[in-house]
Amino acid sequence: MPGIVNCPKEAIMPVKDALEALSGKWKIPILVSLSRGTKRFKEISKEVGGITDKMLSKELKDLEMNLLVSRKVLDTFPPTVEYSWTDHSRTLGKLIHELQSWGKLHRKKIIEG
Amino acid sequence: MPGIVNCPKEAIMPVKDALEALSGKWKIPILVSLSRGTKRFKEISKEVGGITDKMLSKELKDLEMNLLVSRKVLDTFPPTVEYSWTDHSRTLGKLIHELQSWGKLHRKKIIEG
Repeated sequence: MPGIVNCPKEAIMPVKDALEALSGKWKIPILVSLSRGTKRFKEISKEVGGITDKMLSKELKDLEMNLLVSRKVLDTFPPTVEYSWTDHSRTLGKLIHELQSWGKLHRKKIIEG
Repeated sequence: MPGIVNCPKEAIMPVKDALEALSGKWKIPILVSLSRGTKRFKEISKEVGGITDKMLSKELKDLEMNLLVSRKVLDTFPPTVEYSWTDHSRTLGKLIHELQSWGKLHRKKIIEG
């Protein structure tokens, strides 16, 4: 397969690193939601759909720790919190695009059998 | 971000589909191992590293169900089983390549901080 590094360990290690940072079913959907601009907690929750507040809060913390989301507290009363992409999450553009294209292709394949 | 479909639900749904088929930390490493040719259970286990036989057997069944792995029983004594890529898993080439490149970039970013 073109482009895939040949030695198994060398080929598998970076994939494991990527999967660890993006683990679970929520992190990438959260990043896709934020790809359209800065958002508040409830806005992300609404767009991603089906995620509990507890899970969203945990995933946002993980993403922040991995430098993939930035969190800003605005000096309003009460204070409001905004989440946005970082320069580092911008590097995920191609990968997310590939996931979208493959997801469409896979759905078609599975439906057609 | 270039190429990412703009309407949230439309942008997130295919990503959820892809993540469901490739869920967990083992399926893609297994596919990377098989990207280098047909393999037996123990060979995959050795290359992926750190996976239990029970988990590998479950993940191979999931992958087979999603048309991403083909399983062949050879008429030897005792019978031997071989696993290989399918035409459908070949469509994952670009996505796996993106995961590898991003995994390397992410490791560098996290180490450099």
